[in-house]
Formats: sequence, C-alpha cells, structure tokens
Amino acid sequence: MFLLNGQSADSIDLLDRGLHYGDGLFETIAVINEQPLCLDKHLQRLLSGCERLKFDFDDIEILQSEINSICKDTDRAVLKIIVTSGTGGRGYKRNCSDLKPTRLLATYPWPQYPDNYLSQGIQVHLCSSRLGHNPGLAGIKHLNRLEQVLARNEWDDTNTMEGLMLDIDDNIIEGTMSNLFIILPDKKLVTPDVSLCGIAGIVRQYIIDNCAELAYTSDVKKISLEDVYAASEMFFCNSVAGIMPVRQLSNHKFPAQLAANKIRQFLISRAVIAPS
Amino acid sequence: MFLLNGQSADSIDLLDRGLHYGDGLFETIAVINEQPLCLDKHLQRLLSGCERLKFDFDDIEILQSEINSICKDTDRAVLKIIVTSGTGGRGYKRNCSDLKPTRLLATYPWPQYPDNYLSQGIQVHLCSSRLGHNPGLAGIKHLNRLEQVLARNEWDDTNTMEGLMLDIDDNIIEGTMSNLFIILPDKKLVTPDVSLCGIAGIVRQYIIDNCAELAYTSDVKKISLEDVYAASEMFFCNSVAGIMPVRQLSNHKFPAQLAANKIRQFLISRAVIAPS
Repeated sequence: MFLLNGQSADSIDLLDRGLHYGDGLFETIAVINEQPLCLDKHLQRLLSGCERLKFDFDDIEILQSEINSICKDTDRAVLKIIVTSGTGGRGYKRNCSDLKPTRLLATYPWPQYPDNYLSQGIQVHLCSSRLGHNPGLAGIKHLNRLEQVLARNEWDDTNTMEGLMLDIDDNIIEGTMSNLFIILPDKKLVTPDVSLCGIAGIVRQYIIDNCAELAYTSDVKKISLEDVYAASEMFFCNSVAGIMPVRQLSNHKFPAQLAANKIRQFLISRAVIAPS
Repeated sequence: MFLLNGQSADSIDLLDRGLHYGDGLFETIAVINEQPLCLDKHLQRLLSGCERLKFDFDDIEILQSEINSICKDTDRAVLKIIVTSGTGGRGYKRNCSDLKPTRLLATYPWPQYPDNYLSQGIQVHLCSSRLGHNPGLAGIKHLNRLEQVLARNEWDDTNTMEGLMLDIDDNIIEGTMSNLFIILPDKKLVTPDVSLCGIAGIVRQYIIDNCAELAYTSDVKKISLEDVYAASEMFFCNSVAGIMPVRQLSNHKFPAQLAANKIRQFLISRAVIAPS
C-alpha cells in the first residue's frame, strides 16, 4: 500500500527530485500489531537528515497521522517512509519558489529470511564494492544508494543474508543493509565509526547507549578486516531483521553467537526489534 | 514533454528503483533544429554506464527512435534521457526475474543564462560542499547527485552561473554541472582527473581529443586551487551551456577569456555545442 502526500497512489510525478537526483531521505521501520517500532527515533533521524540536506520539512504531525493510517490492521509489516525535496525544475538548484517536500509512505510484506538465521547465524559475503568517503553525507539515510545496490548485487546465493562493506581505505564500515558489531574480550562491543561513510542506524545507536545494562561496554572506532577475524563474535543489526549473528564470513568461521543472542533478547524486551 | 518507455506520461511507478536508490543513469543533450548534438557519444557513455552498473540494457534502436520522436519540431531544447534498472522490489537486490530497465525521455526549454556570460565571462562560487571519492562510481553520469544538489544550493545570486567543487582531499574536480579546464603557458590545457570522483563529460573529452587542431596540448591531472589561481584562464564546459569562460572565482579575477572563446568557436563549427 502507498500513500503519496496523504493520498493512495501507485505513481509519482516524473519531475520529482527524488527520481532525478536522489534528493531525498528514507526510513525503514518494523511494524508489529500496528505499532512502528522506535518510531520517535526514526522520525528524529528523518528530521535531522532534512536539516542536513536543507529541506524545508517539519510536517511531523501530518506524517504521524499518515503512519497511523497506513499501519492500521497490519500484523507484521515493513514501513518505508521517503521524503524528497519535492517536484520541479531541471537542474541541481531547488529553484521553484513553491517547492514542497514529497511524502511517500509504503508498507511491504515482512521479508523472508533464510531458515535458522537466528539459531545458526548467517553466512556473509565480503563485498568488493567499496563505500566512498563523504563526511557531508555520512550517517544519514539519503536516497543515493548505488554503492549498496552494487554491493548487494555481487551475490545471488539465497543462503548468504548480508554482505560486509569496506570503505576505500580498507576500513570495515557496515553491511549492505545493516550496521555491525564485533565482540572483543572483556565484553567489549566495537562498531565502526560512520563519520566518513555509512549509516548511523537506530538499532546500532540503541545498543551503544544501552549495552551497559547487559554489562557490556561499547566503542566506536576504526575497524580492520584483521580486527574482524580476531573477534570472538560478530553480528549485524537493522530495524527489520533485528540482530543477525554471523556464522561465517567468506571462509572464516566464528565460534559463537552468544552475545548476539543475548543482545537480541534484550532488544526484543525493549520493543526495539521484532520478536521472531 | 515526457516519454516513459515510449509512451507519453507525466508520472512513474512508485516502485521504480531510480526513485528508491538512484539506481540509474542520465544524459543531458542539446537539441538544435531537431538534432541532438553528439548523440552517438552520449549513447556510448550511457551504454558504458549501464555496463558499469550491470544493467541489462541495450535497447539503443528503440531509444534512438524515441529520441527522434521527442525531438521532432524542436528548434532549441534540452533533452534528458534517464535509464533506471527498472521497477520492483524492496531492498538493494535487483531481484525481480523480470526486472526491465525503465527509459524516460524528457525535453525542457532552453535555459536562461545570465546576460553576457559569453562576452564577459561568468562569476563562479567556490563551493564548500565536497565530492567524495568512489572509483567504482566515478566518471559515469548516475542518478546519485546529492553532492551536486547540496553544492548548487549554496548560492542564490543569479549572476553566479557555476560553482567550483573540490574533492575531500582539496583537489579541484569540476563545476556543479560542468567540467573545467585551466590554461597554462605554452597553450597547455589542463583538466582534472576524474578517476576518483566527477563526471567524464562529452565536451571535456572532445576538447582533450581535438585541441591539437588549435595548437593546444592537453593534460589530465590533479589540480589544486593554487594551480587555478596561477592560471591565465579558466573555463567550464558542458553539453548545454557549451563553454563558460570564467571572469571571476570568489575574489580572484582572470585577466582573459581568449582561449575559451577560441575553443568555443571551434566546438560550434564541429557541432559539438550550440551556437548562441
């Protein structure tokens, strides 16, 4: 189902700047029993992205009412929110005096994940496509996603659930559709810095902010592939799949998925991610 | 006027991957008396971009016939061609078995440029927005254009026709909508390397390949802001505005626009750019 500026629709104006330039932002949210999980945090990130991209957008009340409407009667679904700078003009300049951001809401069926991905952990592809550096765009969930598209299309095997992406300087950054943590001795969780590239995920930030409750400490820093191979555990996280413990990255096998499962239960209990 | 997969249209499927991910390419072409200038070179770049992005697209004959149709009866117009990976699915994986690239053709009125930009040269803004590095995407004209949008929206002054963009390592790369050349002693034209970021423009390449006919030599290399300030001349070029001689960059004034005007006349005589 789609709501375009509040109206049911199946198509969008050919002049929308989201299509021409990727001049927009998005959020992907798990909806369980009509409730979008962590909605406040997603809307806060959306607004912060609007500020970074200099969109004149603050219609949060309207958006909230459209979200309620599209989530009604959903048992378990994925909600995608797109906000673009609006419709009009040729050229990079947003020069229509009446340029008004476009709101697009869509619900999708819950995705089918590989069997036993939670109990046995996932298999991960090491992507050759790299993330470029741009501090001006890093962190936010904008519509310029060609790097992820190219990376995700490197493999077809349905048993491989995620791909690990490095940046152009060989730093580990994230999955194609998720953030990641590695686990070091003394219950230390480490996640890559996303100030040059990558997305600052909602689940990632929740784990950073709340892991002390599980007696973990967290650190945000540069991580190399060697660090990953030296870690006892690794997991990916996003708002829909929740926690994805890693069984195998390329030929490297991780011995355990204990921390991932513990953190997963904690996040479910806080309604940050969906129960299976 | 718009042609979407050969049909007149004013809207596009909400699931098009161009909108969701910028998963597409474009070309911007000057049309003079029904003739798109340098069409072969534009189509060649489009196909080469499709190969880089791994699109299954080779409908050049269909595209050519649609171009003829949309350019009919145009005296002077801008033709924009967009090709996206197609419609369907949520997620970065292009996983519809029947995913078929979308063709969108649009004609726009010829833009209004500042008075006397040819005779007096243009004023240029030094952009603070930077170009990130990504060799995997550099050179091609893809739909991920947020960097250019942010840069172009740094200024409102209608007398400033172009902005100069640097990369994250302080190298000069291009304008927000054009390539650039500086002129050094001994009739040497230098244009920045675009292997880490930037677009490999059609007019830029034509100048590199043919400047010897005007007794210029050309060089493609890294250029710093100091190199630009030390140059006797500077000009921007693209397929619609043609050659834009630079009068002033921030507070720095260039003494002459002689080479730019000479090259401009040469390109007009070869039907590479439009006469004024």
